[in-house]
Amino acid sequence: PLIAILAGDGIGPEVTAEARRVLDTLGLDLTYEEGLVGGAAFKAAGHPLPTETLDLARRADAILFGAVGDPDCDALERQFRPEQAILGLRKALGLFANLRPAKLFAGLEDASALRPEIARSIDMVIVRELTGDVYFGVKGIRTTADGLREGHDEMRYDEAEIARIARVGFETARTRKGKLLSVDKANVLETSQLWRDVVIEVSADYPDVELSHMYVDNAAMQMVRNPGQFDVIVTGNLFGDILSDEASMCAGSIGMLPSAALNDSNKGMYEPIHGSAPDIAGQGKANPCAAILSAAMMLRHSLDLPDAADRIEAAVAAAILGGARTPDLGGTLTTREMGDAVLANLA
Amino acid sequence: PLIAILAGDGIGPEVTAEARRVLDTLGLDLTYEEGLVGGAAFKAAGHPLPTETLDLARRADAILFGAVGDPDCDALERQFRPEQAILGLRKALGLFANLRPAKLFAGLEDASALRPEIARSIDMVIVRELTGDVYFGVKGIRTTADGLREGHDEMRYDEAEIARIARVGFETARTRKGKLLSVDKANVLETSQLWRDVVIEVSADYPDVELSHMYVDNAAMQMVRNPGQFDVIVTGNLFGDILSDEASMCAGSIGMLPSAALNDSNKGMYEPIHGSAPDIAGQGKANPCAAILSAAMMLRHSLDLPDAADRIEAAVAAAILGGARTPDLGGTLTTREMGDAVLANLA
Ligand SMILES: CC(C)[C@H](C(=O)O)[C@@H](O)C(=O)O
Ligand SMILES: CC(C)[C@H](C(=O)O)[C@@H](O)C(=O)O
Repeated sequence: PLIAILAGDGIGPEVTAEARRVLDTLGLDLTYEEGLVGGAAFKAAGHPLPTETLDLARRADAILFGAVGDPDCDALERQFRPEQAILGLRKALGLFANLRPAKLFAGLEDASALRPEIARSIDMVIVRELTGDVYFGVKGIRTTADGLREGHDEMRYDEAEIARIARVGFETARTRKGKLLSVDKANVLETSQLWRDVVIEVSADYPDVELSHMYVDNAAMQMVRNPGQFDVIVTGNLFGDILSDEASMCAGSIGMLPSAALNDSNKGMYEPIHGSAPDIAGQGKANPCAAILSAAMMLRHSLDLPDAADRIEAAVAAAILGGARTPDLGGTLTTREMGDAVLANLA
Repeated sequence: PLIAILAGDGIGPEVTAEARRVLDTLGLDLTYEEGLVGGAAFKAAGHPLPTETLDLARRADAILFGAVGDPDCDALERQFRPEQAILGLRKALGLFANLRPAKLFAGLEDASALRPEIARSIDMVIVRELTGDVYFGVKGIRTTADGLREGHDEMRYDEAEIARIARVGFETARTRKGKLLSVDKANVLETSQLWRDVVIEVSADYPDVELSHMYVDNAAMQMVRNPGQFDVIVTGNLFGDILSDEASMCAGSIGMLPSAALNDSNKGMYEPIHGSAPDIAGQGKANPCAAILSAAMMLRHSLDLPDAADRIEAAVAAAILGGARTPDLGGTLTTREMGDAVLANLA
């Protein structure tokens, strides 16, 4: 299988290098090709998502993504900013299903702002729709009848888009506790009302999964009050953006959390949830665990190598339990030394 | 001045009664008139916001609101559900500025899910726009070219709506630390880009206030990681809904937090942020402090009685510091006894 490596900006290259090292150790039949993305691509090729990179992403069986974001690009027009590469890849490849696990690793109880007894209970997967909603609806700036500037963005989902992400939610629930929570704002939004209706319709095919519903404002509260109540959450693009970031922070160390964005043939883009952290780029201070765990998700979801994925995840957990700590976790290991600690635990 | 009392459902009447008792003690020149709202109004008059109630709300100088929400009404069509009364009052009275203070009361450090040293730092005001955004844009269910059901809701703000809430944000910042944070999603939404542009334009009139910006997903993270960094936040209706609920839960006891919704002549509706809590209604278990503090906000913002407001707020703080605790705070006081404790501290 061909893996596209899009390392991107800031700490992207250094954490991706450790993920690559871990993959190499497993003796899998993988080939790699690197592509430019984000601010690095804008500087080298005039666009955050050059055609060659998009072609590579299309040809590849999976994409290992680092991070994008570069302060030098902040003042650019929106279409040239690094994060447009992420949105472009999601849309072009139809990566509609974003899986964002959030859990507290044993040994990191003190990394969370939540009290340890609450933080310890965190172990959930947020299934976020990624190619629809107010992100991709008709948008722009128009002039009102009174001559005022007016910004507009249409939130929208059709029933097919909702049903397809709902199925990912139900399937994910089946691999865990058999419970699915759908989050919406059906008391105010018609899109949410249809979302709720369709999720209920799809639930007929999953009689073994227990479905419940919660409003997004309440979910944002419950995520702090008692995050242990959540197991699998399915929600739209915007609410998923907000809630999954909140959940990852509740879990404490965003340097530890991976994500996957899948299309309907399980091709995917795998990416740490942290950003490019330009302030520490190139200094060997970044925690590579999120990138390494993203590689594990890639093996599981796109390459059908669940055993190898399990091995990587167990090695990361063991390294952490054994006391390996980068600066974000209060330790002094370099990026490479943390990679070494994971390799040492790859039995 | 005429105060409309809309006590509503569940615990609404019992907490509002305590707020009323506190107001009565202050010897102010207030008259009261009660109106039906929410599920109680639907059951009595067939609509959650009957015409007489809306008329009363228009005539009154301020509205003291309890809570709405009634499980008996869950299956009704959206237009008859209790929460439509809130949306209807906001829109009809032009209550565009929602002030939501979130702070930790001294003595309640253990009520928060956050670690005490983090929770202790929480003291912010969220200024949420309340009559625009995706809440009130064109919405509905339509059929796509492929014959699919599609839900749609338009997010929108014009520059006048943004400027007017921005001014409330800047004015609020002036009464506190002189810092204003505007929260948006300008990397994805055109509405947010206009929001950011207009807030920056308005900032020219407030050179003494330091303005900054944050994306909503990051704000949802920072609210957990380090809520003490926030002082005054201004944001749109939807993001404000989510973030203010998250903030209040970080502060620990949602039984303690009031809110105000103001129009441009400072007429307002004052409401605890908690809901109707039907499970404990009528049992004297509810914490009346949020309702009492809402009455204090009413005196300050609509009736220009800041000293009386200060007195109430000091009395609540003193009661809490003195150990008064309803069950939500781990104590055994009844609603009325908590009211007594506040009255006893009204020096
Ligand atoms: C960079 C941004 C456009 C993106 C999003 O909002 O989806 C990011 O926040 C994420 O969650 O992957
Ligand atoms: C009841 C609901 C419509 C309302 C809102 O979303 O505005 C509530 O959550 C609030 O924050 O006051």
